[in-house]
Amino acid sequence: MLPYKSLIQVDRHSSVALYIQVCNLFISLITDGTLQPSDLLPSSRTLAELIGINRNTVKLAYEELISQGWAESIERKGVFVLSSLPILSKTKLPETHKDNAPQEAFLWTNNFKNAVPSKNLQKTILTIDDGFPDVRLTPIDQLMREYRSISRKFYGKNFLKYGSSKGSEHLRIAICNYLSNTRGLAVSPENILITKGSQMGIYLAAQLLLLPSDHIAVGISNYLCADETFRQAGANLLRIPIDDNGMDIDYLEALLQRKTIKAVYIIPHHHCPTTVTMSMERRLKLLKLAKEYRFAIIEDDYDFDFHYDNKPYLPLASIDHNQNVIYIGSVTKTFAPALRIGFMTGPAAFVEAAASLRELIDRQGDTVLEEAFALMFDNGEMDRYFRKSLKIYKQRRDMFCEMLKSDFADQIEFKIPEGGLAVWSAFDQKINLIKMAADALKKGLYIDDGIFYKNESFSANGLRMGFASLEEHEMVEALKILKTIIS
Amino acid sequence: MLPYKSLIQVDRHSSVALYIQVCNLFISLITDGTLQPSDLLPSSRTLAELIGINRNTVKLAYEELISQGWAESIERKGVFVLSSLPILSKTKLPETHKDNAPQEAFLWTNNFKNAVPSKNLQKTILTIDDGFPDVRLTPIDQLMREYRSISRKFYGKNFLKYGSSKGSEHLRIAICNYLSNTRGLAVSPENILITKGSQMGIYLAAQLLLLPSDHIAVGISNYLCADETFRQAGANLLRIPIDDNGMDIDYLEALLQRKTIKAVYIIPHHHCPTTVTMSMERRLKLLKLAKEYRFAIIEDDYDFDFHYDNKPYLPLASIDHNQNVIYIGSVTKTFAPALRIGFMTGPAAFVEAAASLRELIDRQGDTVLEEAFALMFDNGEMDRYFRKSLKIYKQRRDMFCEMLKSDFADQIEFKIPEGGLAVWSAFDQKINLIKMAADALKKGLYIDDGIFYKNESFSANGLRMGFASLEEHEMVEALKILKTIIS
Repeated sequence: MLPYKSLIQVDRHSSVALYIQVCNLFISLITDGTLQPSDLLPSSRTLAELIGINRNTVKLAYEELISQGWAESIERKGVFVLSSLPILSKTKLPETHKDNAPQEAFLWTNNFKNAVPSKNLQKTILTIDDGFPDVRLTPIDQLMREYRSISRKFYGKNFLKYGSSKGSEHLRIAICNYLSNTRGLAVSPENILITKGSQMGIYLAAQLLLLPSDHIAVGISNYLCADETFRQAGANLLRIPIDDNGMDIDYLEALLQRKTIKAVYIIPHHHCPTTVTMSMERRLKLLKLAKEYRFAIIEDDYDFDFHYDNKPYLPLASIDHNQNVIYIGSVTKTFAPALRIGFMTGPAAFVEAAASLRELIDRQGDTVLEEAFALMFDNGEMDRYFRKSLKIYKQRRDMFCEMLKSDFADQIEFKIPEGGLAVWSAFDQKINLIKMAADALKKGLYIDDGIFYKNESFSANGLRMGFASLEEHEMVEALKILKTIIS
Repeated sequence: MLPYKSLIQVDRHSSVALYIQVCNLFISLITDGTLQPSDLLPSSRTLAELIGINRNTVKLAYEELISQGWAESIERKGVFVLSSLPILSKTKLPETHKDNAPQEAFLWTNNFKNAVPSKNLQKTILTIDDGFPDVRLTPIDQLMREYRSISRKFYGKNFLKYGSSKGSEHLRIAICNYLSNTRGLAVSPENILITKGSQMGIYLAAQLLLLPSDHIAVGISNYLCADETFRQAGANLLRIPIDDNGMDIDYLEALLQRKTIKAVYIIPHHHCPTTVTMSMERRLKLLKLAKEYRFAIIEDDYDFDFHYDNKPYLPLASIDHNQNVIYIGSVTKTFAPALRIGFMTGPAAFVEAAASLRELIDRQGDTVLEEAFALMFDNGEMDRYFRKSLKIYKQRRDMFCEMLKSDFADQIEFKIPEGGLAVWSAFDQKINLIKMAADALKKGLYIDDGIFYKNESFSANGLRMGFASLEEHEMVEALKILKTIIS
């Protein structure tokens, strides 16, 4: 007989029932080959005495083994390991945390490697980020109030059931009104898909529009996650110069005469990373070209709500666009990065196809959150919050730019951004940003090292300096640390 | 001069400021070609008199037009439409809701058509569903309590910031403990990705494992959304027979000798649609084959928590599997369909790649919800809820099966399912399910028409009848209606 006293050791303090522990220990003995098919298990009386537990517990464990298909009971003979189990070689379970390259594990060819460097997600350290909102301003109490009101209502339970993969109808209507009031954009709910943040809009558009080796035009500098999403869809990126008026549409036009371009991706307010706004003249010209060459414009306008100096420009989607514009926006970016709500608008048939694809990706969004956001749009909370944060961010932009100008005139070149949450800062070529970031970290300041903004055709010695998430005293402190490093 | 009095009509009751209305009306006149580049706008005095608004409002509107790049002011001459705007032809804006086939809109080749028929998502009508949980049992008050406790804490604000695309570390640890306690599955947080429901696990696994024209083995009957997800990745489906012990692994073995198979998709507890449980013998044999032929097993165990007659079988992932198993589970399916939380476990490198891909899809999950679920796992609420619902669903299964047996012996053939939330019901061939569903709807009962369960090789005259979301009186009522139709 096997040395069961040492093999079957139970833990009386565990929350797992004793008979389950015994059962699981037997399963380990079977799967590691210690017990082989047709082996006899000790009688319940014997085992109970050996390991000092109640005989009924052993019986329960055996019943469990039998019901799970590991063992069989043969009358008047006892309990045996199931004779028809495949014979397993005697090997130990691999350590689960040393599993990076198991020798005989499955082969996977699409070993997707993300080219997107990770950015600081630490919660505590003083940080000059990429241009994130200040979550201390997020009206979380108002959101909780809406959550409570939904959960207390009888009909609220319905929002826990499966819903449309296009998103809550209530929120789609609220977004229609919001787009109409803020952007003069006239769409119906059937033209809207509620996404998990603007990233999902980019992903869905890329998957629907692009086939392997299709061309998509993007800025010479561009939002890296968008570039990667288009590459993931198999597309080739054609880089178009960006100047102070946004994408160079004449350059694009020349290219269109030579190549078939499936889509053009733009961030009209305010280009990422360089924060420039696309001029109205270029917007109209791009629309003309889209009509002539029949390409789609993916208009990523996640930054529309943060425009300080005048009313923001009309989106391309608000102008006569002949259904050529897929318009992507974000509530997440305004409200709180972790509460993932964005939207995509486009021709109804396109939105329908996107909803079908989305059903395979994650079925649908979080209906309770969608309803709560819809209520906040309805009762004006969202609007009040947008106004309030816009005012605060404008002050912070002005303060931050003032400090940059007075203290870093020799090291950093920048233009005051018309909007957005970050300043595009071109550093003196003598400053090594990687070293700067490392030095700053030692002094308690996280700042990007600029790698995130580079690509195969863009290598400026610059980075986005986010001001929105910093209160005045934090700006002062952060820039003081930076100053000690690069002056 | 143009007839501005009729062209510029403002709405004094609108929430949109008057000057923005005037500005937007001028933009429409420009984009539809009524006003051409270099056209002179009426003086502010003239327009103010014509349309009966304050002259300063007109001035503000013109300033807005200028700042948005539509117009330019020439000193002592007036305000003109920007001369450098591209000339637009005079066309009306298309009606946004008649946009299914705009004549010159962009071309999109991946016109993804979902083959998944939509199921009833109506909230009110009496429904025999596919096997959904009863959201009336969802402990929404406890969830709200956790939400409040998070939102009241100072550190709670941190959960509003960007977080890991693998999901909250706290929830990953909680799921580790839960998997260990319930399934003897030993994984570390680095082996876990928190998904938006099990569907996202299937999608990520498909995208990472399958290249176009790769083979994946699936059941001859199978969960349609999984089939579609594999097809969307370009894979060929190889259909394997399913019997009372689950997938026929001998059949699979014979196939493996002829074809390279990249992955095998199984739903071991309880196969969808037919609810059979895969025997332990077959589980072990499948693991052996995976090691020999180096394919991945995608183990979709969304139904593990609903097993009534004994403890559920050990997942393949809990047995020595040589890192060949990608294990997918759902909290959503247990808790509430609209609160999207699931998980995927696998080798750390695979999980890392899945997290990178996920970053392009939707960046990350909803951290606040993830934290709240983690707290509910920690304080035992989740466990209490699982036990409570399991007990109720077992009673409902027994009741429902009793009713089916006594009232539909001649029309419906079924086996009492060992677990899950639905009974696979094979209807008499004489009963036309499409007609039955249509007749039922007229009498106030929604029941599936069976199309969802069919595929190119499976055409049983059957459907899943979900019992879990029905209270006793609802079952009685629903089956009474059904009886009047098919007896």
